[in-house]
Amino acid sequence: MAERDGFFPQTSQNTVKRLPQRGHYDRATIYPILDAAFVCHVAFVQDGQPFIIPTLYARQDDSILLHGATTSRMLRHAESGGALSIAVTLVDGIVLARSVFHHSINYRSVVVFGHGRLIDAPEAKTAALAAFTEKLLPGRWDDARPPHPNESKATSVIAVEIESASAKIRAGDPGDDEEDLALPIWAGVLPIAQHYGPPIPAPNLAPDIPLPDYLSDYLDRQNQNAAP
Amino acid sequence: MAERDGFFPQTSQNTVKRLPQRGHYDRATIYPILDAAFVCHVAFVQDGQPFIIPTLYARQDDSILLHGATTSRMLRHAESGGALSIAVTLVDGIVLARSVFHHSINYRSVVVFGHGRLIDAPEAKTAALAAFTEKLLPGRWDDARPPHPNESKATSVIAVEIESASAKIRAGDPGDDEEDLALPIWAGVLPIAQHYGPPIPAPNLAPDIPLPDYLSDYLDRQNQNAAP
Repeated sequence: MAERDGFFPQTSQNTVKRLPQRGHYDRATIYPILDAAFVCHVAFVQDGQPFIIPTLYARQDDSILLHGATTSRMLRHAESGGALSIAVTLVDGIVLARSVFHHSINYRSVVVFGHGRLIDAPEAKTAALAAFTEKLLPGRWDDARPPHPNESKATSVIAVEIESASAKIRAGDPGDDEEDLALPIWAGVLPIAQHYGPPIPAPNLAPDIPLPDYLSDYLDRQNQNAAP
Repeated sequence: MAERDGFFPQTSQNTVKRLPQRGHYDRATIYPILDAAFVCHVAFVQDGQPFIIPTLYARQDDSILLHGATTSRMLRHAESGGALSIAVTLVDGIVLARSVFHHSINYRSVVVFGHGRLIDAPEAKTAALAAFTEKLLPGRWDDARPPHPNESKATSVIAVEIESASAKIRAGDPGDDEEDLALPIWAGVLPIAQHYGPPIPAPNLAPDIPLPDYLSDYLDRQNQNAAP
């Protein structure tokens, strides 16, 4: 199938089959979801058995970066070019319909297919480590102590080029059947959002070290955006 | 390996290899994590390719229940007894160390291995549908309109017996190296928790239908527990 600008081609692999109206294939929908979550789940096959591993990640252009100890089974598999499927899901609310059948959640999820490739060149590896750090907290890379060579060496970085991807999104009100609308049952949505609490300084933090501006700004921004 | 009471046996499949001190194998640790999340990620193999699907689930004793349309590829695979790996992850905070290398998140995750089995007997199927509904909102099953026979028929329910499982947990302060403690860099944890916003009534909800007590009680409880 021809690829439109900004769209991933739809194949049998990535096409959303259940409730296809919830499926999206454009980067403009998929990438903000990838950028909003912290943890992805990576699936891979070893000796015919499916394995799934939750892990931190970062998106860099059209790739998902994974990292961890060089000894990680998942990373060794990814490094050897094995097929991966990676998913990210954000839960936005509980959908309470009048009927049990139409209960659901509001969510944004992305599923990616690709193959891993080791990032070994020093500059590319440093850029990847910066991407992980900046994803956790924008502004952090320039403040924190950079990796020592031995730390960098103990860390494998894998780039998974996004070969195909799809997003699936449910938003909005419950979808009750017409004949259920008059039932005397409360229906609606309970919004859910991730909120940040007040930062907890490390117990061994010197008391004269203030909270950095990039951190307090980030908290304000996240909690405003998240307000359900 | 002998199974202790309440513990899943440790095998090469479920043993936490990276940072083994974060691994747990007892039901008392694993089940509250499974009970706290809404979405799991199910990995399965088809034609040698790993697939991953985010989906709602519920735990019932030593099984994870999955459900969906009878046409779902994942459920058909599960129904046929194919091997599954299922993961659930809760993010509790961002861990900001002085060094980039020790940045992390606080999290609770569970990985389960098992095989699916169709739940077809009417009573067991109804009990499973109740478990899904009660997981979304305790008290909801007795209030919402029960499934019609055709709705029940259109839904596949699969039980995945938890054959092996592990939890992996990180909590608490950053783990900086001794020689980094004097660096003038803020270190600590940004707690993250899921908060519920005010319920949004369906636009077509009759104005005389009040918010049910089980719902407002649940919101209070969740938001108190979640307060980061």
